[in-house]
Order: sequence, then structure tokens, then C-alpha cells
Amino acid sequence: MAGTIAVIGGTGNLGAAIARRLAKAGRTVIIGSRSRESAENAAADLGFGLVGRANADAAREADLIIIAVPFAAQAGTIADIAPHCAGKIVVDTTVPLVPPKVMRVQLPPEGSAAQRAQAQLGEGVTVVSAFHSVAAHKLATDEAVDCDVLVFGDDKASREQVVELAGLMGLRAFHAGALCNSAAAEALTSVLIFINKNYGPGEAGIRLTGILE
Amino acid sequence: MAGTIAVIGGTGNLGAAIARRLAKAGRTVIIGSRSRESAENAAADLGFGLVGRANADAAREADLIIIAVPFAAQAGTIADIAPHCAGKIVVDTTVPLVPPKVMRVQLPPEGSAAQRAQAQLGEGVTVVSAFHSVAAHKLATDEAVDCDVLVFGDDKASREQVVELAGLMGLRAFHAGALCNSAAAEALTSVLIFINKNYGPGEAGIRLTGILE
Repeated sequence: MAGTIAVIGGTGNLGAAIARRLAKAGRTVIIGSRSRESAENAAADLGFGLVGRANADAAREADLIIIAVPFAAQAGTIADIAPHCAGKIVVDTTVPLVPPKVMRVQLPPEGSAAQRAQAQLGEGVTVVSAFHSVAAHKLATDEAVDCDVLVFGDDKASREQVVELAGLMGLRAFHAGALCNSAAAEALTSVLIFINKNYGPGEAGIRLTGILE
Repeated sequence: MAGTIAVIGGTGNLGAAIARRLAKAGRTVIIGSRSRESAENAAADLGFGLVGRANADAAREADLIIIAVPFAAQAGTIADIAPHCAGKIVVDTTVPLVPPKVMRVQLPPEGSAAQRAQAQLGEGVTVVSAFHSVAAHKLATDEAVDCDVLVFGDDKASREQVVELAGLMGLRAFHAGALCNSAAAEALTSVLIFINKNYGPGEAGIRLTGILE
């Protein structure tokens, strides 16, 4: 499994929670942020040996890169780190939420945010997508998270690395097919936001049923 | 709640299972098929007072219409029944599977099969979509089905009727937002086919977690 992991956007709710769980499980993790100072402060707050860097430096020092930024920041962030992604696995967690109508599915013209990332990064980078519908505030705790992770990507061995990382984080994860299938999990996130608003209390997720385990 | 229900494509696996569960629960249900004879035979086989009609006649006699046909047959079937849908709720179950790559998400240009149905039927018809990822062979039995139903539609009261019908069928169902959100459940079906192939045994579904019940 890859060595050092960078979490780009690691000062955000989802990124910080992912970085903390991976570092707690013993992995070497760098938190990336637009500002190095913010990244260093977040890393110090989280503990577990985390360190902070500006996004591009975090990507450069990492073997595997996780992007956890809002949809509106996805393209700019990828432009920043792209020179340091060649030959690496990039795990995109982006959900294409378009405010103010975040409860409506609004997939991008490429089909999914994951395909958009792959198109921007080009063929020398292996994009895998995952962690779309995990509630960040649950992931930020040491509690069990009652939500399965669907992992998408065109390369099975790369998907498997992400399935294993999710396992390290205490999450049950499944291979869920080609990168284009990411549309399902990305779209589902808007549905879960709707369900949270209508049914409460704000922690909706999904579990797979009817499978052999 | 609406009176007579027509299940268009009611001789197929999903349609027959839906018709049988609704009829067993005491609702008046007509099975529609391209051939009246096939519809009558299927109705007789299923019992529970079911009757068979050609699709257009079934739609004409019904107050609420459920469409359960393959994606390739959706447009032709809707063209057949459209004259009899005005002012009614039409429940579309279509999943946009495009053989041979049924494990790949391939949403139509309209965004979802449900929006495609709404565009074809026009404003005088209220399209609701549901039942995308329920395993038909489980629904065809009297067993409990370990899968939640997500119900999409732009009119809340119409969605509620479908949530209640699902309840009559023994299924747990949820309001899941606007009709465009149907993309999530439709896309998820290709993912579940992939997961069935990779994890077995062919009954993958989803349950919502983290909600107040």
C-alpha cells in the first residue's frame, strides 16, 4: 500500500476527519491547505503525528493524494496540485453540490465530479472516487460510522488500495465499478441532504443489504 | 388514495411482483401488456383478483399508472398510453440500463429516465419515480424485502401516494426529493448490478441509516 498520504483540503470537515482517522491508524499523513499556516495549525490540533503543508507541497511529498474540497474549489485545487500527481492515485471525494439548491441532483456535464477530475488530471493519473456520503461530523469522532463507502475507479488495484484505506478508518467499503459510476454516489448525497431535512437528525447514510460478507 | 391501479409491463418480473403485492393487499389492479392475451394469462396465474388488458386499455381504466418496462421500451410504451394519462399520477420505475454494459452508469441526456418520461408525457401528468433497485425476484415472494424504496417527484402529495403504496407492498419507502433526484436511484442500480457480480449472491439493495423513524 502507498506510503505517505496527503489530504488536500485537510482543514475542512471531511478532510480533517479522514486525515485524523488515517493518522490514528498509523499511516503517515500530511494535511494540505491553501495556507501552510492553516494546515500546520489543523495538524497540531488533530495530533497523531499529522503535519501541515500548502496543498501543492503536500501533494508533492505524498504517494497517494486525497482531495476533500467543495465542488466550487475542485478545479482550482486540482490545477494547483496537478504537477505533483503524475503516476499517483488521486482519491476524489468531491460531491457536485450547487448552492443554493443542494438538495437537487445537479451532475456536471462530464457525468460526475470524479470524471471531471480525471479529465483535468489526464491519463497519467489514476483517479478513484469515494467517501461521498459519509457524515463528516461522525467520521471526526472515534465512534462507529453507520454508512458504507462505495469506491469507484477504472483500475481495480487502485480501487483496492482505497477500499483498504477505508477499512483502516473503520469503514466498510465496496468496489462499486468504473469511475463513471461515481455519479450514483455523488447524486445520492443530494438525496441524503433532502432526507436529512425531511426525516432528521442529519446523519443519513446507506448500508448495502443482500450481499455475501 | 387513487382507486384502480394499472401496472404497464405487468407481465415482466418487476411489474408482476408489484401487481401481485398490491392486489394481495386488497387494491384493484390491472395488469397491462402489449398483448391482451399475455396480460390475461399473467393475471390468471398470479390470482388475487388481477385482470389483464392491453397496455392502453389498462391505462385508460386506471386512476394511477405504474410503468415497469425495460429502458429500451420506455418511450414506445409511453407513446401507447399517453392519451390515457392526463390528470393521473404515473409512477415510472425505469432504470436506464444500456446493454451490454449494464454495470456502467449511463444516464440519458434528460438527466434521468424519470425526467425523460415527464418530458414525453407533458405537464398535465404527474410523474413520480420509485422501485428502481428492489430485487424483483424477492418482491415476487411473500418474504420481507431488505431494501428501502426512494420516491422522487416534484409534487409532494403525489409522492406520498407512492410512499403509501410501497408501504402496502411491505416496503419501507422515503420521500427522496424532486424528480431530477431520480438520477441517484437509477444510477445506483448499475452499481448494485456490479456489486452483485463482485460480491454475490444477486440481491444487493440499500437501507438508509442515521434517520429518525
